[in-house]
Amino acid sequence: MPIRPPHRSGDDPHPDLAPVAFLLGTWRGEGTGEYPTVARFGYAEEVRVGHVGGRFLTYAQRTWAPDTGLPMHAEVGYLRPGGPGRVELVVVQPSGITEVDEGTVVGTSITVSSRAVGHTSTAKEVTAVTRSFVLTGDSLTVSLSMAAVGHPLTGHLTAVLRRTN
Amino acid sequence: MPIRPPHRSGDDPHPDLAPVAFLLGTWRGEGTGEYPTVARFGYAEEVRVGHVGGRFLTYAQRTWAPDTGLPMHAEVGYLRPGGPGRVELVVVQPSGITEVDEGTVVGTSITVSSRAVGHTSTAKEVTAVTRSFVLTGDSLTVSLSMAAVGHPLTGHLTAVLRRTN
Repeated sequence: MPIRPPHRSGDDPHPDLAPVAFLLGTWRGEGTGEYPTVARFGYAEEVRVGHVGGRFLTYAQRTWAPDTGLPMHAEVGYLRPGGPGRVELVVVQPSGITEVDEGTVVGTSITVSSRAVGHTSTAKEVTAVTRSFVLTGDSLTVSLSMAAVGHPLTGHLTAVLRRTN
Repeated sequence: MPIRPPHRSGDDPHPDLAPVAFLLGTWRGEGTGEYPTVARFGYAEEVRVGHVGGRFLTYAQRTWAPDTGLPMHAEVGYLRPGGPGRVELVVVQPSGITEVDEGTVVGTSITVSSRAVGHTSTAKEVTAVTRSFVLTGDSLTVSLSMAAVGHPLTGHLTAVLRRTN
């Protein structure tokens, strides 16, 4: 008999995920990027947040050029409750970067900062990251600041997304 | 007009991916796990390796209990060429672990070791990981050793997979 992966939809999220369950869904929208080393740019973004019954959310993001549709960035990871009011986010980027981020969830606002950033030998050096996910009405504002290639923590990306499902 | 993500299939893999392109596909099979702290156990595994046109492979793995179908483990990441004969693998686990792994590709054999393992405040402490992916005929053997919770680098997981597509 062929090996088949289990059916995974239909379960309720783990009860410990209640404080962060507002992130569940597929979100799309547009954003703006800037950094001291690059010209200001626009992008389209999709963020997918799901669960598989365990005590974590799955996170997958990708961006593309609004005009050409060409892929720009992508990243994947997991979001974990870290105790009352606390959130842990682990993220990996195809540029060879890993992040261990920790912070708070207050209402529908999550803010995390890196406690460790890893990078492969050929990756650009990113030394710190701060991320936020803030739901206001129907709009999820996703922001990222980073310290990289010698610059201190500086605003880099902000996008406003809406749930598509 | 609604924002839609770009169509991403149909592109050829980036030419730099040729040495690791043997991993492309969806692989399934069964494995065995052991560690000084746990009883020997069996698992079913799926590994999906893809590309989106960029200079990296996407990697997604999950395991489940062969008898009940209940999810056991999952992880996601990216595999990058790191120069001639070199491979970089960044992986993130829902248990709150990040890995920056580096090593070699020789023929259809990839072996990488962690140069950095990150973990969130509530994660178990894993201090080192070695992974291998070896294609022999139609069989992809996937192995993982780890140093964790005070034990030195010790064999933990081995599975034999076959391509399903």
